[in-house]
Amino acid sequence: MNIGVIGGYKCSKSVYKTAYTVGTLIAQERWTLVCGGGSGVMEAACRGAKEAGGLTVGILPTDDERSANAYVDVKIPTGFGYARNILVVRASLALIAIDGKYGTLSEIAFGCNEEKPVVGIDTWDIKGVFKVKTPQAAIEYIRKRIGV
Amino acid sequence: MNIGVIGGYKCSKSVYKTAYTVGTLIAQERWTLVCGGGSGVMEAACRGAKEAGGLTVGILPTDDERSANAYVDVKIPTGFGYARNILVVRASLALIAIDGKYGTLSEIAFGCNEEKPVVGIDTWDIKGVFKVKTPQAAIEYIRKRIGV
Amino acid sequence: MNIGVIGGYKCSKSVYKTAYTVGTLIAQERWTLVCGGGSGVMEAACRGAKEAGGLTVGILPTDDERSANAYVDVKIPTGFGYARNILVVRASLALIAIDGKYGTLSEIAFGCNEEKPVVGIDTWDIKGVFKVKTPQAAIEYIRKRIGV
Amino acid sequence: MNIGVIGGYKCSKSVYKTAYTVGTLIAQERWTLVCGGGSGVMEAACRGAKEAGGLTVGILPTDDERSANAYVDVKIPTGFGYARNILVVRASLALIAIDGKYGTLSEIAFGCNEEKPVVGIDTWDIKGVFKVKTPQAAIEYIRKRIGV
Repeated sequence: MNIGVIGGYKCSKSVYKTAYTVGTLIAQERWTLVCGGGSGVMEAACRGAKEAGGLTVGILPTDDERSANAYVDVKIPTGFGYARNILVVRASLALIAIDGKYGTLSEIAFGCNEEKPVVGIDTWDIKGVFKVKTPQAAIEYIRKRIGV
Repeated sequence: MNIGVIGGYKCSKSVYKTAYTVGTLIAQERWTLVCGGGSGVMEAACRGAKEAGGLTVGILPTDDERSANAYVDVKIPTGFGYARNILVVRASLALIAIDGKYGTLSEIAFGCNEEKPVVGIDTWDIKGVFKVKTPQAAIEYIRKRIGV
Repeated sequence: MNIGVIGGYKCSKSVYKTAYTVGTLIAQERWTLVCGGGSGVMEAACRGAKEAGGLTVGILPTDDERSANAYVDVKIPTGFGYARNILVVRASLALIAIDGKYGTLSEIAFGCNEEKPVVGIDTWDIKGVFKVKTPQAAIEYIRKRIGV
Repeated sequence: MNIGVIGGYKCSKSVYKTAYTVGTLIAQERWTLVCGGGSGVMEAACRGAKEAGGLTVGILPTDDERSANAYVDVKIPTGFGYARNILVVRASLALIAIDGKYGTLSEIAFGCNEEKPVVGIDTWDIKGVFKVKTPQAAIEYIRKRIGV
């Protein structure tokens, strides 16, 4: 089961830590972590997942797999630039948004538009996004919504 | 010069009227109107533009050109579903958002992400979107930003 | 009605002349010419269409409308690189392939796959492509197949 | 390292067996198998890879992961229809084409266009495709070209 983690290429240490924990928990649930494959929140989440023995997928904006962060197992270069964001959403059954700027907002919007569960931690305040304060609460919400 | 009009498939009579006027003004500037080619705000804007002698482009979610509203001159079927939203943004030098739901939000997000001018009339309250109250003010803002 | 012209960025003078005539005839049929918006065959066809008073659409690989050839009316930047080829096919009711390399072959393949009429002039010899020797024969074939 | 296997949704028993062996060998090389995630050649290759302990990725035409064949580990729904073919090519460092119709031809064309190694077994006879008779020869060619 693919769960998407969305967030920016740059983030604070605190956000990095949060994203790392989200990745860890996703791996512990034995879910596959899907993301945009970049730095920042994406790297942190992949790292957390990898170090917990999970599987990570990066849907990359470039057409070169070497642009992925070091913790991506399955690299999907697209050459679409930020248009690959829609593919991150389509490849995920639910999304966890952490921090982030306009790219993350586009993913939140697509996720809500496609009626997928979208959980937010310190991110855009958009109606339809379920706001939580901790990685644990994010995972708990997705478990309920996905029915596992 | 392509100017995008983004908004929902359904809208109130009042919003329809606003979008119609936006379309009229775009045609009067001799800009090409780009949109998603659907009903609601898209139809209203195309209709306004057509009835003022303008040119309209619809980048369609389906792969069938017959799904376009009746006021689209150039029909671009994509078969991408809502993923075509990114193409509406990429095809436009600036965007006017009117009303709208999550699909519109995704376009606002992409527009801001690609650093294009985005004007909003009664739409999502997103930082970076220049809020105006009238079609005239929207056009005026774009003229200044695009430098024409 | 959109008719696509597909072919390479580089071509001989002879091929350029053929593509120019194809563009002219498309305009005379009052069809809209769709292409990838580049140089070579695409430029020649757009030029022929424009000089005969037609309407031309270029679905561009870049995200910058200034990359279009000088004879494109409606510029659709995509930022998808060669992946925009599929959009050229989806936006066309029928395709005329002239000369061309692998990019053209991908469009021929997509066109045949989507069961659209594909006419070829001095291009890849692919089963399903209707081979003709002149622009006039290409137009005639499309008229019959599209039923106009 | 991602290696793509391309071919049709339907195939003969003999082709199925060939694709199965290609999948087995890819897994034995510890490469990740990328494909369109469907039936026929795609299913056979995934099955071969899975039964040899490999990792398989399916880039799906639908937006529903349940449309993948039973041997896909990482399901990437796209909702792009056959336009997802370009993503299969972009996600692969090299391609092995087996049998196949126009969809496969589009992938061969994209692969050649992007200058990736393309090996063919009983498939379209396109200049630039390296023709081999056995799965073993296909793997051998890719090993040489990729330099592993």
